[in-house]
Amino acid sequence: MPRFIEQTSYTPENVPLRESLFMVGNGHFGIRGSDEERRHARFRGTLINGFFEKSQIHYGEWAFGYAQHHETILNAFDAASIELTVNDKPLNFSSGLTQYRRRLNFDSGTLTREIQWSCPATPSSSEVSVEVKSLRMASFVRPTIALVRYEVRPNAKCEIRIDSLLDASIRNRPAKEGDPRVGTHIGPNPIVWETLLADEGNLRIAGTTRNSNLGIAAVVKHRVTLTRGASNAVELRPGFIPPSEFRSESIAHDEELMYRIGASCGEGDILLIEKFIAVVNGPGAKLQQLLNQAEEDALAALKDGADTLLAAQSEYLRTFWAGADIRIEGDAKMEEALRFNMFHLLESAGQDGATSLAAKGLSGEGYEGHYFWDTEIYALPFFIHTMPKIARTLVQFRINLLDKARQRAQELSLPGALFPWRTIDGEETSAYFPAGTAQFHIDADIAYGLLQYAYACGDVDIFLEGGAELLFETARLWMGLGFFNDRKEGKFCIPCVTGPDEYTALVDNNAYTNFMAQLNLQEAHRAALELKKSHPQEFQALAAKIGLNTAEVESWRKAADAMYIPSDKETGIIPQDDQWMDRPAMDLQHIPRERFPLLLHYHPLMIYRHRVLKQPDTVLAMILRHDSFSLAEKMRNFRYYEPLTTGDSSLSHCIQSVMAAESGEIEKAYAYFVKTARMDLDNLHGNSQDGVHIAAMAGSWISVVYGFAGMRSTKERISFTPHLPAAWKQLAFTILWRGSRIAAEFRHSITKYTLIEGNHVELEHEGKLYHLTRQTPIEIDERPRPRAWIFDLDGVITNTAVLHTRAWEQLAIELDLPFPPDTGDRVRGISRMAALKIVLGAHASEYDEKKLNELAERKNRIYKELIGQLSAQDILPGISDLLDSLRADGIPLVLASASQNAPEILERLGLRDRFYALVNPLEVRMPKPDPEIFLRAAELAECRIQDCIALEDAQAGIDAIRGAGMFSVGIGPSLKGCDIRFNDTSMLSREAIEAAFVSRVRTS
Amino acid sequence: MPRFIEQTSYTPENVPLRESLFMVGNGHFGIRGSDEERRHARFRGTLINGFFEKSQIHYGEWAFGYAQHHETILNAFDAASIELTVNDKPLNFSSGLTQYRRRLNFDSGTLTREIQWSCPATPSSSEVSVEVKSLRMASFVRPTIALVRYEVRPNAKCEIRIDSLLDASIRNRPAKEGDPRVGTHIGPNPIVWETLLADEGNLRIAGTTRNSNLGIAAVVKHRVTLTRGASNAVELRPGFIPPSEFRSESIAHDEELMYRIGASCGEGDILLIEKFIAVVNGPGAKLQQLLNQAEEDALAALKDGADTLLAAQSEYLRTFWAGADIRIEGDAKMEEALRFNMFHLLESAGQDGATSLAAKGLSGEGYEGHYFWDTEIYALPFFIHTMPKIARTLVQFRINLLDKARQRAQELSLPGALFPWRTIDGEETSAYFPAGTAQFHIDADIAYGLLQYAYACGDVDIFLEGGAELLFETARLWMGLGFFNDRKEGKFCIPCVTGPDEYTALVDNNAYTNFMAQLNLQEAHRAALELKKSHPQEFQALAAKIGLNTAEVESWRKAADAMYIPSDKETGIIPQDDQWMDRPAMDLQHIPRERFPLLLHYHPLMIYRHRVLKQPDTVLAMILRHDSFSLAEKMRNFRYYEPLTTGDSSLSHCIQSVMAAESGEIEKAYAYFVKTARMDLDNLHGNSQDGVHIAAMAGSWISVVYGFAGMRSTKERISFTPHLPAAWKQLAFTILWRGSRIAAEFRHSITKYTLIEGNHVELEHEGKLYHLTRQTPIEIDERPRPRAWIFDLDGVITNTAVLHTRAWEQLAIELDLPFPPDTGDRVRGISRMAALKIVLGAHASEYDEKKLNELAERKNRIYKELIGQLSAQDILPGISDLLDSLRADGIPLVLASASQNAPEILERLGLRDRFYALVNPLEVRMPKPDPEIFLRAAELAECRIQDCIALEDAQAGIDAIRGAGMFSVGIGPSLKGCDIRFNDTSMLSREAIEAAFVSRVRTS
Repeated sequence: MPRFIEQTSYTPENVPLRESLFMVGNGHFGIRGSDEERRHARFRGTLINGFFEKSQIHYGEWAFGYAQHHETILNAFDAASIELTVNDKPLNFSSGLTQYRRRLNFDSGTLTREIQWSCPATPSSSEVSVEVKSLRMASFVRPTIALVRYEVRPNAKCEIRIDSLLDASIRNRPAKEGDPRVGTHIGPNPIVWETLLADEGNLRIAGTTRNSNLGIAAVVKHRVTLTRGASNAVELRPGFIPPSEFRSESIAHDEELMYRIGASCGEGDILLIEKFIAVVNGPGAKLQQLLNQAEEDALAALKDGADTLLAAQSEYLRTFWAGADIRIEGDAKMEEALRFNMFHLLESAGQDGATSLAAKGLSGEGYEGHYFWDTEIYALPFFIHTMPKIARTLVQFRINLLDKARQRAQELSLPGALFPWRTIDGEETSAYFPAGTAQFHIDADIAYGLLQYAYACGDVDIFLEGGAELLFETARLWMGLGFFNDRKEGKFCIPCVTGPDEYTALVDNNAYTNFMAQLNLQEAHRAALELKKSHPQEFQALAAKIGLNTAEVESWRKAADAMYIPSDKETGIIPQDDQWMDRPAMDLQHIPRERFPLLLHYHPLMIYRHRVLKQPDTVLAMILRHDSFSLAEKMRNFRYYEPLTTGDSSLSHCIQSVMAAESGEIEKAYAYFVKTARMDLDNLHGNSQDGVHIAAMAGSWISVVYGFAGMRSTKERISFTPHLPAAWKQLAFTILWRGSRIAAEFRHSITKYTLIEGNHVELEHEGKLYHLTRQTPIEIDERPRPRAWIFDLDGVITNTAVLHTRAWEQLAIELDLPFPPDTGDRVRGISRMAALKIVLGAHASEYDEKKLNELAERKNRIYKELIGQLSAQDILPGISDLLDSLRADGIPLVLASASQNAPEILERLGLRDRFYALVNPLEVRMPKPDPEIFLRAAELAECRIQDCIALEDAQAGIDAIRGAGMFSVGIGPSLKGCDIRFNDTSMLSREAIEAAFVSRVRTS
Repeated sequence: MPRFIEQTSYTPENVPLRESLFMVGNGHFGIRGSDEERRHARFRGTLINGFFEKSQIHYGEWAFGYAQHHETILNAFDAASIELTVNDKPLNFSSGLTQYRRRLNFDSGTLTREIQWSCPATPSSSEVSVEVKSLRMASFVRPTIALVRYEVRPNAKCEIRIDSLLDASIRNRPAKEGDPRVGTHIGPNPIVWETLLADEGNLRIAGTTRNSNLGIAAVVKHRVTLTRGASNAVELRPGFIPPSEFRSESIAHDEELMYRIGASCGEGDILLIEKFIAVVNGPGAKLQQLLNQAEEDALAALKDGADTLLAAQSEYLRTFWAGADIRIEGDAKMEEALRFNMFHLLESAGQDGATSLAAKGLSGEGYEGHYFWDTEIYALPFFIHTMPKIARTLVQFRINLLDKARQRAQELSLPGALFPWRTIDGEETSAYFPAGTAQFHIDADIAYGLLQYAYACGDVDIFLEGGAELLFETARLWMGLGFFNDRKEGKFCIPCVTGPDEYTALVDNNAYTNFMAQLNLQEAHRAALELKKSHPQEFQALAAKIGLNTAEVESWRKAADAMYIPSDKETGIIPQDDQWMDRPAMDLQHIPRERFPLLLHYHPLMIYRHRVLKQPDTVLAMILRHDSFSLAEKMRNFRYYEPLTTGDSSLSHCIQSVMAAESGEIEKAYAYFVKTARMDLDNLHGNSQDGVHIAAMAGSWISVVYGFAGMRSTKERISFTPHLPAAWKQLAFTILWRGSRIAAEFRHSITKYTLIEGNHVELEHEGKLYHLTRQTPIEIDERPRPRAWIFDLDGVITNTAVLHTRAWEQLAIELDLPFPPDTGDRVRGISRMAALKIVLGAHASEYDEKKLNELAERKNRIYKELIGQLSAQDILPGISDLLDSLRADGIPLVLASASQNAPEILERLGLRDRFYALVNPLEVRMPKPDPEIFLRAAELAECRIQDCIALEDAQAGIDAIRGAGMFSVGIGPSLKGCDIRFNDTSMLSREAIEAAFVSRVRTS
């Protein structure tokens, strides 16, 4: 199956968007996907990775330590444009265009276009139809080289003129109010062009930037061929004398260089022009060398020819797709989107260690070509598991900027290193520190990226090559930023930061930041100890260099151990920060659609003072530190934050998708996945014309691999817990893990793992460990089957409610109080103290707190006495048989009761040995309807959630079972939302339940 | 005594500072105090109140709702300069200056200068000595008029030339990094000059600003007189033909207009030039009218002549000083400073309702001429009590901008009106919202100013003239900004604001803000109810205009009643905000002096994340809402915040001074007073060259009147509680209160109040009410005398410690535990539970919490039984006699014991009737050494603190007494810091105590 995206008609209104989508790039530069004919382009040009100009930031109100310079990636020139004239009429899409087809081909790594155009008749010539085929490529194999081919076939005699351009008059678009995400703040002419030369078939430019003092050189060499009929080809190369068939001219006009070719053609003739473009950048002081290099590279490309370049490109991409491709049977649209996204990631990622991956890649000028945390947290996983070499260069890029980060930390009176929130060359360029420099989490993100890379790729050398130093210096930052807070039991607190969710700023103890800082400190501590042992000399040298001693290393562990995390008792969630719960929720339902994204329509103070998210960050921390949270915690937090999340950030959707999948909410996960996967193809945020959303693109890979395939990795192991969307027949991809390549195929009925590189790998699937060898693929049956049964106690196994009522009644008698008949119902399911007050009625106020406690205690004693009287006779009808039948088949039974008296009750009923396990209610943080107790029960049964059946008699219990995603059996006439319901236990039927279970699986 | 400041020599390095200090202004414009001779000026020019240019604010990173424009008061022109040439040598201070004396005279309202200069000999002339006398004045009576006189007396024959300038080439200094407080952001040529005309003796300019479209016109008319000998005077006026004695010329060169006069003079001749300057500004569209008006005003001034103008000026200031003057016997330097400050306040305050009082007055370009909250909170009290007309115009200024404030609230999605943090014309101009727009307290400050004005001046009409509308619309803002927080028991919380202390930003529930918002809401509610009753029609009309209903008015009261105020149990202070206590204190001791102010040397994030203040704001709230806090609370908070306060803001010192005085720390109060009073004269913040510190100037008045005289006012009453610095023999001033003028004279021995306007006023002095009538001054003896005695119980009256020991011992016996002999000492003065654990020793862990509580309860029962056995025999030796002796003299005795058993103990001892009052320990928030309990005791005795004697046997008690500022009697051999100490009660001597009391008073 060929991989590509295609455009089959020309629509002027989509031009800016398509220019982003059809970009061709190779990590070094990106050529916007404009049509060759300039008149039809909107924002054409070439973005060169890491090639930037800077300028002073002017502040309306300045303060100490503010970032000093804007930096902007430069749209330096346009070398791709070609103007076609037929009989002196320029090619114009607005009339006479009969065919238009473009394809960005991910296998060949080319953008090809085919058009058919009727050139109208003139007084001196008749109508001519021309077929134009063009091709554009940025070479992955030769990173300085681009190729443009432009081929014209007229259907009649005509005069053809081709103007091939190297246009250095291109400029970045200036910033304007209304959208802070797009536009540059630098001056109008950032590059001083020192060379602007056009000679026979050669176009050459070279210049330096005014402030950043960087040099850029581009050379275009042309090869022109005229083929008449089948064999009669005439060729022209630079420096050769043009054959008489051509008229050629080289023109330099200001900043526009042009090579003009004219020829008289007839039917069957083919006029082909090939542009071999070389782009070289480097220090401004070495401009002549850069130009020489570009000349040399262009000449070599010309000599080797287009076919050689194209063949190498295909070969490169064959390797890439062998490792990266994802196949989805049953969802072609998403498959296309994923491939498009992966191709753009490859096209945009710097591969030289001096450049990284900008927020918009190389496809547009949005965010000024800055590198953010997007690289480490969103894009790196894709490269780690498909192209580890690129992953290493991205990590190395940060290590190379450690000195600048140390300097920045000093400017902020902080120890260690502080990486810039946004940058090109390592200098902080964020002009709004509350959502810039205050995002200290960037340090932990970068450390996290390094660790992920090192562990998943098994590359421990990186620690000796600057990685350890980076870990140590980032750990130091946290020690300076945080403190042991006596007012929070000596916990390590980090005040006044901004987390990834920029709709909240300058808060204390942002949970994401603290979780990530904790990991940073832990891992720095661990790395120091390990390195000291494994490489004592290297460690000593490093310690001497940065002045590190044992006490400091130990302090990291202490801070990590004492790290404070906000908590909320009432909801059981982890509040985003210390201020979070004390700000009012924003009523998102009543905000009109057109006022999203909020950041473009509300003052920051309006946003900051409300509980509202641009993107989830606590939930993100739960993905990044997946093994530090129970599934119940993840579900609870995801469900809490989701309604407060606008998704105004394109970084939001994939996080939601992954966590929805892990929570078993597959449809929701899919809906979020669509938003991240087709963000750019469908221009979902309406701004892809300014460049594609690299993090969202990488997020689509994350949504599939981390979400639907449920991949996770720790230092030790890789694991999968698939959650396939219903419509998908199969999801298949390969994953690199420490040099081993695993091919994974997920179907609803079966999962198959094959080791295609490496000899042996340990792999966890749905909590179980497998040893995968080269010889033997593993196949795992995925069909849900009822493997464990989970029981509530009260109302399901026995009726303790009656005992409670009797205990209250006895207390009332003792106190000489009335006990109306409905009291039993009124006290059911509420706290002991609340029940007591109902029983006491108007007399409640006569008792002080102490006395009330005594009475509650008294009731409990009576209740316990009543429990002591329970026996097998008190087992509800039908239950004994059901338990016996299940037990006989060896099915594990688990009790999920919140009652601390449950063990004793089971004992008295004579049922204790029927149960495989009892959930300890003290280990359950939140009561039903939170699903926690049922999730814990499934864990005890060592059973997948989809293989559990749970029985409940209360609505809160049924809701908890549903929340957990389990099959629910309701006992009681008025319960809602059960998978199957019985009026009472005597009607329970194992067969009916199991039949319903199977039928639910089939229909879902 | 004449009032003035003087400069008696010329020192070039002080020029920029003196230009600020010697400014002459009249609320309409201010002329910098540069020497007339331009070469010796640094930042000369004229600042015209409210005349400004605006320009787009450019943001490095823009966001919705950001302030759009910079505004800058314009330094529009220099009309004061005059160049003197003698025998073609220009007057030059650097050589030949034999005398230089300048005086800013507060009585005449003039700046006068006398210099003597030797003009060196030339080949064609011999040395000439000239005496130059100049005078400058900005007329208070004719606000458009300034006068400059320049008089030259040579001692020999010479050629004299005088160039009188109207120089429109003056520009504001541009902003630069390094200090955000100074410099303008607008472009280089803000005014387009349409008229630049010089004709015989008339200089005229008129122009409009580019963006703000405001017009300015200035006309200078000259009168020249040459007096030869005693009587022979020749005069020249504009339009007249110059007598032959003069050569005159009018020159217009670009933006510089000049009138040149030449004359041949001899010994005894006097050449005088007088400039009558008129400055008129208004809408740009009316430029011609402005110019006509200036022409007319200048002509009228010329006709009336200098003497008339000077006489009117003196008369105006006579009236001013009659109401405003402050006399301090024994501190001439502070008296001078106060008068200087008051004069500058008068010179700078807008008096037309269209202008207000800028942070730097009209003396310099600092803070761009913006109006802040300084006006309402710092300057208004001075005007209210001395010049109520000016106070009214300042209030009216805000009312006039209500529409713009409503619009701004809308931009922030808020109801009501939001006044700008900094502005000239009512538009928000703060380019850094976290320390700008986020200072929502500006609304409450403005409401507070209005209320202070209305109540103290008895001007209820202001409510009908926009005042009520302002109150209502500001109240509305709080309802939109805050919310009833279920998580804080339904309290009304205000999240995400910045208080006055800008070293903390974007916090929840800034205490200052919440206190002031509460008052705003309360008073809006009250005003609505009162107005509805008193002026039903007007109220209905207003309610209809702004859509107000009863429910909304009621909601204000509910929010005010439920207003949340942060609190801290441990320290008993009011934390500045919800985040305050959870941020680490900044270690100010270890910050080098040169790194203050912090804002110029540390990144905001470094400052924000620490507990550190630029200026105290919780303490300020306690001054503004003085009747809502006990003295103990004020002292506690003042003492807590003081060490954390940098005083980096010039608004800090007067707050500290007032609260130190109220806390009885007079020396400290004086030290802070010096900082605010001589801020500019001694250039204490090193930046007075950019303009004087208006708030600090007004702060010096506040320090004296609110601090040392202890004046406070409520809606009902004015009160005084003086605290004179030791060195001051007398402090005297007059105060306006609701149309009555009270002359107050404070001496250490006596206070005297005289009613000099009005018939009768109710006045509170040190907590006692006096009726002051026109006929009879009141004199109050201030000498401290021992009027009340305050006793601790345990160890002073009886030895309950023994009983506690016995109770513990008995418990130990009951538990069959050992009771070592030192146990009694070890359990003394600690909590019951801590004591119990000592008694239980190693066995403590055997008991659970419930059991521990039972044991503690048991011990208490034993103790109470022991109390029951107390009798008169248990009174400590010497106490009975002392109590009897005091009681016999009718001296009130108060018991200050933290023990809840105190009443019973006194009863058992038979001493209950000796005591006038017992402090209820439940009403005391913080234990000793906090002075609260003793302050409360003094209150119960209805006695001044300085008249109390307090007895204690514990060091914490002695510290509490000293903290309260009382006379302390220590009982015990090792106590430190007592005023008098006895080894035990048997040695107590009333005579010795009273003698020591008297001697302390004498030496203090």
